[in-house]
Amino acid sequence: MTGEIERAMKDLGIDLPKPAIPVANYIPCVIAGSLLYVSGQLPIHNGKLMFVGQVGADIFVQEAQMAARQCALNILAQAKAALDGNLDRVVGIAKLGGFVNSTADFTEHPEVINGASNLMVELFGDKGKHARFAVGVPSLPLNASVEVDAVIEIL
Amino acid sequence: MTGEIERAMKDLGIDLPKPAIPVANYIPCVIAGSLLYVSGQLPIHNGKLMFVGQVGADIFVQEAQMAARQCALNILAQAKAALDGNLDRVVGIAKLGGFVNSTADFTEHPEVINGASNLMVELFGDKGKHARFAVGVPSLPLNASVEVDAVIEIL
Amino acid sequence: MTGEIERAMKDLGIDLPKPAIPVANYIPCVIAGSLLYVSGQLPIHNGKLMFVGQVGADIFVQEAQMAARQCALNILAQAKAALDGNLDRVVGIAKLGGFVNSTADFTEHPEVINGASNLMVELFGDKGKHARFAVGVPSLPLNASVEVDAVIEIL
Repeated sequence: MTGEIERAMKDLGIDLPKPAIPVANYIPCVIAGSLLYVSGQLPIHNGKLMFVGQVGADIFVQEAQMAARQCALNILAQAKAALDGNLDRVVGIAKLGGFVNSTADFTEHPEVINGASNLMVELFGDKGKHARFAVGVPSLPLNASVEVDAVIEIL
Repeated sequence: MTGEIERAMKDLGIDLPKPAIPVANYIPCVIAGSLLYVSGQLPIHNGKLMFVGQVGADIFVQEAQMAARQCALNILAQAKAALDGNLDRVVGIAKLGGFVNSTADFTEHPEVINGASNLMVELFGDKGKHARFAVGVPSLPLNASVEVDAVIEIL
Repeated sequence: MTGEIERAMKDLGIDLPKPAIPVANYIPCVIAGSLLYVSGQLPIHNGKLMFVGQVGADIFVQEAQMAARQCALNILAQAKAALDGNLDRVVGIAKLGGFVNSTADFTEHPEVINGASNLMVELFGDKGKHARFAVGVPSLPLNASVEVDAVIEIL
């Protein structure tokens, strides 16, 4: 099956990763009615955590932005698995929650989380436009630089 | 059109700000079924960030409380715009997420976020009573002191 | 009335606490359609905050895990009260939001929040499996070590 979103991914050269296995006792996705809740995703690629550490101290904003993009790719990989491979069931990205591992003087959280937001809009167009928050945190699992979760409206 | 909530605002002398433009690539509100997701709002008034900095270090709890109130006003301004100007479509405020930019020894997050909670109850009465979390963060976009997002049940 | 979940709790020796009173002007639970939003719960037991302080500095991971379990017990106590005593109305735990009061070098947030996740699965089986995030925060209300909120799908 090759749906509309699958074709868009192909056109954009986007290759979804294999869904990452949760680091703990929970599941990546839960469907409640027409909402799909996706667990907080880390910037893991091929089993390896990318762009490790605090933004502002260990890594640059541009790197953290790529980390956020990877989180978004992992969100979509998890969503695809939960939707039996069919991302065309996505009605819209309702909300992203963006946590940036950052120092106390950091202020560019929106730029970082744009890495995730931009991917959603690239791929889904208007349906990818979402509500979100972007906040700093002092630490994240595995010393990840970014964690993003999502609520997705589905058919 | 002058709805019930518009009249309550007038009686309380509450003047909603013009909806703030998102600082990044996302949208202020998404409607998914009967839920309205509102993006995290900062204490911006007339385009100017108010009560800047960390609570406990740069500003007092009372100031942060007013910052939280301003976030709530911005939430309602965004919701009103998304609901074609009609806040009477609000069935209830389901949830507020409250992030307080604070030092490690800060413990009065509930008092701060009350600034937002109180406004909702002043304005909507029982329908304004909501679930919420109130947590500390080490940093926020633009060095804001408070960020609040919302889930609102709508008609 | 003794429902299925009540019996499971009895079998597991789980005794739900009395629902804690909110520390501020909001309510513990809001029902919006088939979703029950539960406010962020602290590890309060019999009116006393347990396992106070920062994980990594003041308390150990194992203690924070027990704190997270207590948060989950309080979530269920609040949910039970909101569901007229009938936890059999729980269709599934949709999402947990886990905030761990921790130092900047802390990385074991998943292990901590497992204290809450494990309880949900012990008690509800597959219906207890949920999406979640687990992040660090520099401070929490009352200097609590953990705060957990929830979205629960209900009948």
